Amino acid sequence: MIRKELSEVPEYVPGKSVEEIKRTYGLEKVVKLASNENPYGASPKVFEALKNFRDFHVYPPKDPIELRERIAEYVGFPEKMIVVGAGLDGVLENVFKMFVNKGDVVAIPIPTFPYYEILAKIYGAKIKFLRRKENFETAEFDERAKLTIICSPNNPTGNVENFEFVREVVESVKGIVFIDEAYAEFTEKRLTKLAEYENVIVGRTFSKAFGLANLRIGYAIMNENFAREYMKVCPPFSISTIAILAAIAALDDIEYMNKAVKKIVAERSRLEKALGKYFRVYPSEANFLYVEAENSDEVCYELERRGVIVRNLKNFRGVKNGIRITVGKPEENNFLLKALEEIF
Amino acid sequence: MIRKELSEVPEYVPGKSVEEIKRTYGLEKVVKLASNENPYGASPKVFEALKNFRDFHVYPPKDPIELRERIAEYVGFPEKMIVVGAGLDGVLENVFKMFVNKGDVVAIPIPTFPYYEILAKIYGAKIKFLRRKENFETAEFDERAKLTIICSPNNPTGNVENFEFVREVVESVKGIVFIDEAYAEFTEKRLTKLAEYENVIVGRTFSKAFGLANLRIGYAIMNENFAREYMKVCPPFSISTIAILAAIAALDDIEYMNKAVKKIVAERSRLEKALGKYFRVYPSEANFLYVEAENSDEVCYELERRGVIVRNLKNFRGVKNGIRITVGKPEENNFLLKALEEIF
Repeated sequence: MIRKELSEVPEYVPGKSVEEIKRTYGLEKVVKLASNENPYGASPKVFEALKNFRDFHVYPPKDPIELRERIAEYVGFPEKMIVVGAGLDGVLENVFKMFVNKGDVVAIPIPTFPYYEILAKIYGAKIKFLRRKENFETAEFDERAKLTIICSPNNPTGNVENFEFVREVVESVKGIVFIDEAYAEFTEKRLTKLAEYENVIVGRTFSKAFGLANLRIGYAIMNENFAREYMKVCPPFSISTIAILAAIAALDDIEYMNKAVKKIVAERSRLEKALGKYFRVYPSEANFLYVEAENSDEVCYELERRGVIVRNLKNFRGVKNGIRITVGKPEENNFLLKALEEIF
Repeated sequence: MIRKELSEVPEYVPGKSVEEIKRTYGLEKVVKLASNENPYGASPKVFEALKNFRDFHVYPPKDPIELRERIAEYVGFPEKMIVVGAGLDGVLENVFKMFVNKGDVVAIPIPTFPYYEILAKIYGAKIKFLRRKENFETAEFDERAKLTIICSPNNPTGNVENFEFVREVVESVKGIVFIDEAYAEFTEKRLTKLAEYENVIVGRTFSKAFGLANLRIGYAIMNENFAREYMKVCPPFSISTIAILAAIAALDDIEYMNKAVKKIVAERSRLEKALGKYFRVYPSEANFLYVEAENSDEVCYELERRGVIVRNLKNFRGVKNGIRITVGKPEENNFLLKALEEIF
């Protein structure tokens, strides 16, 4: 009875949690550098804003207009072009519902964030995988694509795309270009301006630089007509009032976010150099580093039993021997480096 | 470029908020009896459980197993048969992704909760509207239906379905029967046991009796194989840790929930009688009453300008002159009754 498309979707295997690793190896200290979380956490203003919230029994507003206005101000586009969703994943799924019919071509440069492929399969799309260059910039596009998904900075490789190349894609394809800028705050090389094109949707999130991953708040910039249609497919009440208040409070404290980003970017440089002793390390514009190890499975295992969780990318399409390492706080990164010293 | 299916989906019109009504009519006191919220709020244990939560920057677990275990215990089915989602709406959308191909028949008895029709349209289903009897019990079914949606107690009419009739539907249709029991706690006449059938999915929520509408926590009981497939289509991290902790705390305090339900059921009886003076009132097994007024638009307007928001059902398919009134606290219900006395 199940739709046959789902046979193509990988079965769900939950990742190991900090608690599990502690139990398995009898460890007291475990550092997780696997999910690109912001180790500095949310702004104190977020905690302040939620302190007195009591209305758990009341539905959230259907349209959190104040939050949309604040995001508009933050990204420099009009409020009518801003939509929100349950994480950037939720926003992207709504975009699929807006545009992707069964059999439509969805173009995905690989390697990249695996959820694009999962969504494309769920929605019965025909997937066209796009090649990347040596430096992981996307090397081609498909004019026929109904939806082209560009992740910049790219997860897991950390590189940004060339602005002029993406503009060429936008001007050439007959469909929509979705630019996933989840990690935008960690780079100066943004593609956000391309949202001026009618067929471009730029997605962003509060999960990374703003430290609100747990609350699932994503947003996108798209043309007004699209934004109206988006509201038709967006599940009602998909953002809780807690998430709305937290996001607004986070935008009230851009300074706090900027400081965290600055610290992460500084550590990224340090870690990039230090990891070069053991791995091929690629430059990164995000809050993680992509490295290649000859025996990545073994490295990940050896790190794990020493209390460091990183992301083994063996199930990422198009990746060979890749590991993704989130940039943590200095002491967390030192813990990783000490473990590597032991291993090698 | 937008999928043509969306032209059938009604454009989104946000409802009026308490603040808006206050502003529009210059009122100080406004009572909202429109969204079937639980006026007694969440258990004190919920507030206690969330008090010290700091990990906004960390992703929630992909599979909240402890919550699923606690739900299993609560509903009396094994944990492997329990799935969770972002509200019962989210659960139902996942069920659509599991089973509904474009052109499949989705059978919906009307009147009922309008979101079923919206989802069916988004997913390109062929909708078969089913007739109801005078007492609003579903009167027919469609054997060919890939998905039949039974809401019991039904929103907005408040009646439950006959157990033996639904069993007949389950045994006759070639597809899935989704039983929406969002309001199950307000009645003794439940259909939950039917989840023993391979082709039945029973959906439930923490939004109503447990007073957690804001956090969007729904769940469903389905056979193990379905539950595994469900995980493939369920958006990752769709329930925040806050929501998980809140739901577990709510299940730690069933007594609090039962007390709230008891008060609401008592008020439901009182309100049913009192409203009979002005309207045709239908018996209800939920936390709201369905009434028919000759001039429902006028009644809703007159109530609104006196500070009472109820739900005008004029956009509900198959409803004529219907109004849905949530059962509030005694003082809220009295405020409504006073307004009605003034109007009539």
